[in-house]
Amino acid sequence: MIEQLLSAVDQAYDEMVEIRRFLHQHPELSFKEEQTQKYIADYYQRLNITHQTHVGGYGVVATIEGAGNGPHLAFRADFDALPIQDQKAVDYRSTVAGVMHACGHDGHTAILLVTAKILHQHKHAFNGKITFIHQPAEELAPGGAKPMIEAGCLTNVDYVFGTHLWSGLPVGTVHTSKEAFMAGADRFEITINGVGGHGAMPQETKDATVIGAALISQLQQIVSRRLNPIDTAVLTVGTFHSGSAFNVISGEAKLEGTVRTFNDDVQRKIISEMEAIIAGMDKSYGVTTTFNYTTGYPPVINHPNEAATAIACAKKVDTVTDARFTTPTMTGEDFSYYLHEKPGAFFFTGAQIENNFYPHHHPRFDFDERAMSIAAKTFMQLVDHYLMSTHA
Amino acid sequence: MIEQLLSAVDQAYDEMVEIRRFLHQHPELSFKEEQTQKYIADYYQRLNITHQTHVGGYGVVATIEGAGNGPHLAFRADFDALPIQDQKAVDYRSTVAGVMHACGHDGHTAILLVTAKILHQHKHAFNGKITFIHQPAEELAPGGAKPMIEAGCLTNVDYVFGTHLWSGLPVGTVHTSKEAFMAGADRFEITINGVGGHGAMPQETKDATVIGAALISQLQQIVSRRLNPIDTAVLTVGTFHSGSAFNVISGEAKLEGTVRTFNDDVQRKIISEMEAIIAGMDKSYGVTTTFNYTTGYPPVINHPNEAATAIACAKKVDTVTDARFTTPTMTGEDFSYYLHEKPGAFFFTGAQIENNFYPHHHPRFDFDERAMSIAAKTFMQLVDHYLMSTHA
Amino acid sequence: MIEQLLSAVDQAYDEMVEIRRFLHQHPELSFKEEQTQKYIADYYQRLNITHQTHVGGYGVVATIEGAGNGPHLAFRADFDALPIQDQKAVDYRSTVAGVMHACGHDGHTAILLVTAKILHQHKHAFNGKITFIHQPAEELAPGGAKPMIEAGCLTNVDYVFGTHLWSGLPVGTVHTSKEAFMAGADRFEITINGVGGHGAMPQETKDATVIGAALISQLQQIVSRRLNPIDTAVLTVGTFHSGSAFNVISGEAKLEGTVRTFNDDVQRKIISEMEAIIAGMDKSYGVTTTFNYTTGYPPVINHPNEAATAIACAKKVDTVTDARFTTPTMTGEDFSYYLHEKPGAFFFTGAQIENNFYPHHHPRFDFDERAMSIAAKTFMQLVDHYLMSTHA
Amino acid sequence: MIEQLLSAVDQAYDEMVEIRRFLHQHPELSFKEEQTQKYIADYYQRLNITHQTHVGGYGVVATIEGAGNGPHLAFRADFDALPIQDQKAVDYRSTVAGVMHACGHDGHTAILLVTAKILHQHKHAFNGKITFIHQPAEELAPGGAKPMIEAGCLTNVDYVFGTHLWSGLPVGTVHTSKEAFMAGADRFEITINGVGGHGAMPQETKDATVIGAALISQLQQIVSRRLNPIDTAVLTVGTFHSGSAFNVISGEAKLEGTVRTFNDDVQRKIISEMEAIIAGMDKSYGVTTTFNYTTGYPPVINHPNEAATAIACAKKVDTVTDARFTTPTMTGEDFSYYLHEKPGAFFFTGAQIENNFYPHHHPRFDFDERAMSIAAKTFMQLVDHYLMSTHA
Repeated sequence: MIEQLLSAVDQAYDEMVEIRRFLHQHPELSFKEEQTQKYIADYYQRLNITHQTHVGGYGVVATIEGAGNGPHLAFRADFDALPIQDQKAVDYRSTVAGVMHACGHDGHTAILLVTAKILHQHKHAFNGKITFIHQPAEELAPGGAKPMIEAGCLTNVDYVFGTHLWSGLPVGTVHTSKEAFMAGADRFEITINGVGGHGAMPQETKDATVIGAALISQLQQIVSRRLNPIDTAVLTVGTFHSGSAFNVISGEAKLEGTVRTFNDDVQRKIISEMEAIIAGMDKSYGVTTTFNYTTGYPPVINHPNEAATAIACAKKVDTVTDARFTTPTMTGEDFSYYLHEKPGAFFFTGAQIENNFYPHHHPRFDFDERAMSIAAKTFMQLVDHYLMSTHA
Repeated sequence: MIEQLLSAVDQAYDEMVEIRRFLHQHPELSFKEEQTQKYIADYYQRLNITHQTHVGGYGVVATIEGAGNGPHLAFRADFDALPIQDQKAVDYRSTVAGVMHACGHDGHTAILLVTAKILHQHKHAFNGKITFIHQPAEELAPGGAKPMIEAGCLTNVDYVFGTHLWSGLPVGTVHTSKEAFMAGADRFEITINGVGGHGAMPQETKDATVIGAALISQLQQIVSRRLNPIDTAVLTVGTFHSGSAFNVISGEAKLEGTVRTFNDDVQRKIISEMEAIIAGMDKSYGVTTTFNYTTGYPPVINHPNEAATAIACAKKVDTVTDARFTTPTMTGEDFSYYLHEKPGAFFFTGAQIENNFYPHHHPRFDFDERAMSIAAKTFMQLVDHYLMSTHA
Repeated sequence: MIEQLLSAVDQAYDEMVEIRRFLHQHPELSFKEEQTQKYIADYYQRLNITHQTHVGGYGVVATIEGAGNGPHLAFRADFDALPIQDQKAVDYRSTVAGVMHACGHDGHTAILLVTAKILHQHKHAFNGKITFIHQPAEELAPGGAKPMIEAGCLTNVDYVFGTHLWSGLPVGTVHTSKEAFMAGADRFEITINGVGGHGAMPQETKDATVIGAALISQLQQIVSRRLNPIDTAVLTVGTFHSGSAFNVISGEAKLEGTVRTFNDDVQRKIISEMEAIIAGMDKSYGVTTTFNYTTGYPPVINHPNEAATAIACAKKVDTVTDARFTTPTMTGEDFSYYLHEKPGAFFFTGAQIENNFYPHHHPRFDFDERAMSIAAKTFMQLVDHYLMSTHA
Repeated sequence: MIEQLLSAVDQAYDEMVEIRRFLHQHPELSFKEEQTQKYIADYYQRLNITHQTHVGGYGVVATIEGAGNGPHLAFRADFDALPIQDQKAVDYRSTVAGVMHACGHDGHTAILLVTAKILHQHKHAFNGKITFIHQPAEELAPGGAKPMIEAGCLTNVDYVFGTHLWSGLPVGTVHTSKEAFMAGADRFEITINGVGGHGAMPQETKDATVIGAALISQLQQIVSRRLNPIDTAVLTVGTFHSGSAFNVISGEAKLEGTVRTFNDDVQRKIISEMEAIIAGMDKSYGVTTTFNYTTGYPPVINHPNEAATAIACAKKVDTVTDARFTTPTMTGEDFSYYLHEKPGAFFFTGAQIENNFYPHHHPRFDFDERAMSIAAKTFMQLVDHYLMSTHA
């Protein structure tokens, strides 16, 4: 039976690429993925697969029931894009100015749709149920996972799995960690309220640009000097915007960024150090700075048994050359919420384009589409492990 | 005769305020002042005063001939606005989003129009000629003065005067300097070309935001450490824009700013120090930064005799309480080009609103409109000095 | 038998305290511990224990032979002090200005001497041999361990153990790690060669103080931005000295510091980033900076079996309440060299003074002397494990 | 008569050089110039010139009375050296380690001694009195001038003059300003009280080195951003000392520096901005910083008539090619105190060594000794102007 599923994946490869490239050309920002939802729903509609739209937002949940009783397995794929201008020179590049699938969610969606299609065609061959969770808004806290769970997408689910195509790992790689796998990801916004004025009269202003620059430099010291070096953390200022004319001193600067940690103590320490630094800047410059810190996704903590199962299943895929546990990564994922509710695991499927590597969120990010097959086949092996081996 | 002119200014005060407020509500950015040009031209048209439009751009030049032969005097007013969002709570606030008369050019125009109207009505009473130069684009280098001069607006002019309403000085003040009065004003643009990427993986990026912040801090040392403290200079970074998503490390940061100096050696020194600092940043961070430096308006250097005349004339105005030479200011003006061609002077007319002071280019900038009378009356005194005292 | 050894430790407690306090009052800097060597040698001399002095410097090696054949066990204690002014208010404070046992090596020595004395008294009761390695110069790379090993101190040794009294852990704690336990510790020296001059004429100088300050700020970005956050590293600038008069701009600044890492790739990355940053500073400021980087002690990597044995032995000590594996620490130790040659382990013995905690290397550092008993008893348990259980 | 004096200066040139070089080899720090005082006193003693030692410290005051009644003229020379290691390769280099005449005070003393000797030989030829003020401790506030004045060195003096040999100006130059000539010079000391600790555990410390580095960077913004660019000011951190071991995080950093201004408002503004920045650092880092600011010498403000006389007298010296008023300098001098009491002027005598220029306070500072003749001859012309022309 598993051979049929694996072979069906191979046959569906072109369709998977086609879906992925269509989505790549039509990216939508987080919480605005109306057309993508429609695209997914239409796909299930055409196949007559039971599904529900608008689950906790633009979420789509499809379910296939097998022949007999058995466990309830869930797979999840996210489908939102990023506010980045696509700079790739490929014919499937984004058609939407300033919006781009720079993280591979287009691929995740293509994998899951084709996986569902194949499993629907073979639903007589397994027991239990499989739920396909298409989640919007992974890139933007508070994220799409939580409302989908609140809307019931995990009801009666026994195990939940998901994967991320990963440009940092070569094709053939499947990596995860036994427990902590991905970091908690928070968001902050800082607004420096200085006093603007004429570019030639700094003494009558509080120059928000200079203050912001000093702030960014000082924030570097949190990771380098104020944390235990053994603890792992990232503090990134992603945006800095100040001023609207070259000869006008800016009275307001806005900064946004993200903090990544693996535990609450480190997270709390970073917040309190940021507060101290900002309070110090305010005193030093005589300004009033507003600081909003939004705790985002908690860390992705795999369940050890299911993580081991995922690796074991990946090893059975013939194109997989390196499946194993590895060190955690600083990136975040709202897959953490699913793992908080149900046993399961999240893993990376290596998707690096040889000799042409760009990191996730880069304007030239792309991935090797063959990785989609590996992910789909690993899902099939998980189905085989949980839903078929039992009725064998 | 001069009494009649001064009294006419008093009678025209309401009109001057009305003109100013109309322009204040309809600001136009530098080099885009089409409607303002039309407004000025219509005014002269209605009065049947000879004038020419589209002089070196949207410039308007009107001329009045007196009764007999005499010197040729010119007055200049600028009329462009700034890319600033008006935040004043007055009924004449700007109606154009993001555009504002935050420097008083609306007032300059109202003064000059009403001055012309009155002098036109009394043209039998003076000898010689008076030219009214309405100049666009003072706020944005290369400025409107140079093309207007090249188009001939100073042809046969003997003396040229101009004023700036000044929110830093109380009403009743007229200040200028004997020679160097306002600084040379240059513009620069810096683009840091780093490598963007995922906010959680700084090690795979060259974080343009952090690099830009360090650059701004280092640029502070040019004025504080690398120049002779006796030399006067300003280096302002007016805008800093980097990044488009909080969780994406920015690969590109853009900075714009202005440099103000009073002599060429200091200007050259600043440029070479900026180049050295930027080259160092590039080496330190492994990035490539582009640096464009555009020399702007040269310093405004008054002619000593005419500057003394301007102060003497201002002293005769009864509402003037403090007319004198003072220290130079760092702000720039393309009035420098007129003074390079013809004898003359530029002076500040105090216009501070009591208990409600905001500097020029501030979103709440405003001025005390009574200052317009003082400026107009000082112009009348200059006419009296150059064109009437002679035929007395 | 072990009961007798443990009880002997209790009886020798006062002597251990006395030795420790004497050494505490007479600290000597690394590589200059002539009197401390003599003190140790005299102790062994009085007891008639075979020993050798001047082993690879001021090292002392004593050896006790048991009754029969058996393994050869070695314990090591270091005995150098630090260039820190003792600021404690205790009667045993340092009598040497600017030199202080601020790391606990005085305690290590006291433990080992008393342990040797007791084991010498009971040498009929065990098989095999025990070597006591008293090592100078642990605090200053290249350290005293390497020359002692080269001089043969580990010849025929089968297992080597050592401990560090640790003010960060409460009394009753014994912690170590299974493999990587302490970081590699390197040293660097940076000299900025600027141009000095009169404090009022910065424009004629290259201000080494300002350049050094900027350098320190930029070095913070290596850990915060240029390394993989998962990798663990510390870069500390320990000293910064610039200038000799308040009104003279300093032409030379000297910085010294340490880098701590757990693997070679991270170490190499830090060195190359430091080089890049320094090259950038040189270009930016037009100076020439010399940069010396001395790789120091490699990381302390325990042998898993022996580490487990150490923890098991510690657990048998009745005053030990918390013996276990924990996360590695960033501090370095030249104990790494011993573990590179022979199986063994290094562990921390908690020694925190309740309600009066100062970190190691602090001018008020002190430790709870009761921890010396715990360390000595753990050594006794290791002797019991390796040398007595066998002949039981 | 003046010809005889000028010719006597030429004849005494070798002696002047000899004196200067002897002093150069035997420099003494401010307030410690015991031997230099003795040297000066011995010189006057040998010539039988009335003099007094220990005037307000190590000050020496000699007086010569002329033939008849006339004005009372005073000349002043300072004689202290600096804590700088002489790095010149000349045979008269300093013989005292770490102490150097790096400012030319040795020359000032040589000029004044020889001038006194000559005038003593010609005292029958002038009316009035001449006082020679040899002042210690010019380099170190509170300076030697004030106590000498309090001790009466200006009693009955009518005019006071002084000069500084100046390495920034070529030989043949005599420059001064009509009024403000040299800046007020203040001193500050900052001690950052952090928490030291082990170089590998930054999280348990407050790293005074990093805090000090950030402070220095922020202090740069006072001159560049917080003052009116028209105002002239210098803020120099001359010394930064932190830490005593490369692997120990420093708990204390000490900074010393100088502030130079020409008026009280700017001085006050700088102090309050320093206070704000330091308060901000304290809040940001959770440390307590002590800040001592000692106002030093007020600015040197010449008396216009006497300044004009000094320039006129210099012009009469045949080797002077360029005597005139110039812009003020940021350097300070306690000559300000003399000018606060009596009419007079301070001027620079150009002393640059061609093709081998080092600024004052540089370890290779030296001056062209021929400038000493020019200074002495200018003094002779002043004597001629005030004391001889009158009785002619």
